[in-house]
Amino acid sequence: VATLKEIASRAGVSIRTVARALAGAADVNAETRARIENLARELDYRPNQLARGLKLRRSHIVAAIVHRPDELAFEKVCVLERELRAAGFVVQLVFNGGGVAEEAGLLAEALAHHAAAVAVFTAAGSADEAAHLTAMHKSGHPYVLVDRQPVRSLDTVLIDRPAGVAAAVGRLLDGGHRQVCYLGPAGSEREDGFRQAFRDRGLEPPRGWKLSEGWQATPESGRAAGAAFPGLRPEATALFAYSDLFAYGVIRGLTASGAAVPERISVVGFDDRLPSRFVSPPLSTIAHPHEEVGKLAAEVLLGKLGGEIKPGAGTRTAVPRYVERQSTRDLNLGKERQP
Amino acid sequence: VATLKEIASRAGVSIRTVARALAGAADVNAETRARIENLARELDYRPNQLARGLKLRRSHIVAAIVHRPDELAFEKVCVLERELRAAGFVVQLVFNGGGVAEEAGLLAEALAHHAAAVAVFTAAGSADEAAHLTAMHKSGHPYVLVDRQPVRSLDTVLIDRPAGVAAAVGRLLDGGHRQVCYLGPAGSEREDGFRQAFRDRGLEPPRGWKLSEGWQATPESGRAAGAAFPGLRPEATALFAYSDLFAYGVIRGLTASGAAVPERISVVGFDDRLPSRFVSPPLSTIAHPHEEVGKLAAEVLLGKLGGEIKPGAGTRTAVPRYVERQSTRDLNLGKERQP
Repeated sequence: VATLKEIASRAGVSIRTVARALAGAADVNAETRARIENLARELDYRPNQLARGLKLRRSHIVAAIVHRPDELAFEKVCVLERELRAAGFVVQLVFNGGGVAEEAGLLAEALAHHAAAVAVFTAAGSADEAAHLTAMHKSGHPYVLVDRQPVRSLDTVLIDRPAGVAAAVGRLLDGGHRQVCYLGPAGSEREDGFRQAFRDRGLEPPRGWKLSEGWQATPESGRAAGAAFPGLRPEATALFAYSDLFAYGVIRGLTASGAAVPERISVVGFDDRLPSRFVSPPLSTIAHPHEEVGKLAAEVLLGKLGGEIKPGAGTRTAVPRYVERQSTRDLNLGKERQP
Repeated sequence: VATLKEIASRAGVSIRTVARALAGAADVNAETRARIENLARELDYRPNQLARGLKLRRSHIVAAIVHRPDELAFEKVCVLERELRAAGFVVQLVFNGGGVAEEAGLLAEALAHHAAAVAVFTAAGSADEAAHLTAMHKSGHPYVLVDRQPVRSLDTVLIDRPAGVAAAVGRLLDGGHRQVCYLGPAGSEREDGFRQAFRDRGLEPPRGWKLSEGWQATPESGRAAGAAFPGLRPEATALFAYSDLFAYGVIRGLTASGAAVPERISVVGFDDRLPSRFVSPPLSTIAHPHEEVGKLAAEVLLGKLGGEIKPGAGTRTAVPRYVERQSTRDLNLGKERQP
């Protein structure tokens, strides 16, 4: 008996497209649908395999547990919902207004009552606090974690933050910057991407490139960091700021201390939150791959629901994208960018 | 037989609290719960009335249809979800990536398949295009529209935008401004609030207070409006900008044309979107009453599900709140606010 994966591979389309075509989704083109249906017959695929799996679980609901406030998670939930609906599922939104303990309660409730599968969004807590996730993993119930700190072998759609930082810092280096610093809370995987950008070009980060000073990833802390920075590293021409929220503060702090952005210091953030297009100057930053993350999460859940992806084989990685705006400039152009 | 409403009224609590207490929600305090249970017995309330209604509809799912991109709707959906979950419901998120036609399709799908009730968020289209909503209303199926242009007698949780504008413009007038203008697309109910603020103080808006010039509610159009404004109304000291997105552009346009905000012109927006805290200067604006809107929507849906609110009796209004930041200043203080 064939799996969705085999059909997808032979048809040259994604598992998602196969699931949608076999579920009768309207937006799969006729030719693709016919090819998939022919392959399903040829390969003796049981089209009701997915449906039977659901029947056993007595639900076609997928619960998405999301923390607030997080417009970044909502962008991904929208994509996930669109994909799962096309495959015949209902996405239940579960808003967690609390912490990890509340999340565990909401997850237990969703599983006990109805959810055929669960997507758990956003980061909260350490590995020690993830007992409820590990238990779900062991139970074999279909789930996926989305953009969360990786916990042991749990199935997670990850965002490759180091790759995003490497792209952004690489762009600064290619623009002639060498005195580039890293500002933000210590101990992040982002630091690896920062170093990688230098390494890829046969360069070394400048001495004292990493400044943490007990800062948090908040606008307030960013403001203090921005105000202190020109005094701490007078030779610097560019900096990577840990997150957009931190970067908004950094720009204010720099500006208040007389260091113009980007004329004196180029600033790059991380997240591409909604304000980044509207702050002054508009922030060059690293955008989450919302569309890809949402699609991968749907693909993992559908694969698990159809029995084609086993627990532990559902980790995927999406690479974020550098978005250049007006908070950065090239040194070797000899002129500033126009906003 | 008593209704939830009667119990709520006698117990001095909201319908929502009664529904939650009778559904066994953990966050209703013991004393309140006991009072509600006693009243329910006394008044011969049938505690399974709500449950029976649901059973007939064979679902405990409430579908929330939301457009994108809209972080403002998501704030409200989070509150709605929290309230309905506490009363034993599951909230299905349905993301509409299209227009009114797609909304009609999604609504039909939700109703045909499972949804016990539906909340339809955000504005789209004119009354003519709302045939699917009118049909739902006539069918008697529990629904509520949320923050949408009012359509005839459809049940809607409205945001009283004129009241919000009146509060903001009133604050400008009380701060000594008289030459206040209204910038944005023509034909909005916001204009009524603008006039009301003057009327409440026995004043008249200045000649030519309303400038539309074919502008749209976008940052780009706002920028053109801001750049043109000092030339069009050189005597003006303050302006109300139609929306935050428009206002972000207006501030850029004003600044680019040499009119400093708020030193030369005070600017007020509408919506309190995420960027408003981070633009330069931080924008004084009118915030949606997300919490109240979400609670009212839940109350209307629970009331309809329990048979206590009839179709046509479910319209509620929430008043937005003026949030003062640094894009406005008082004229009669003789000094500028510090950021």
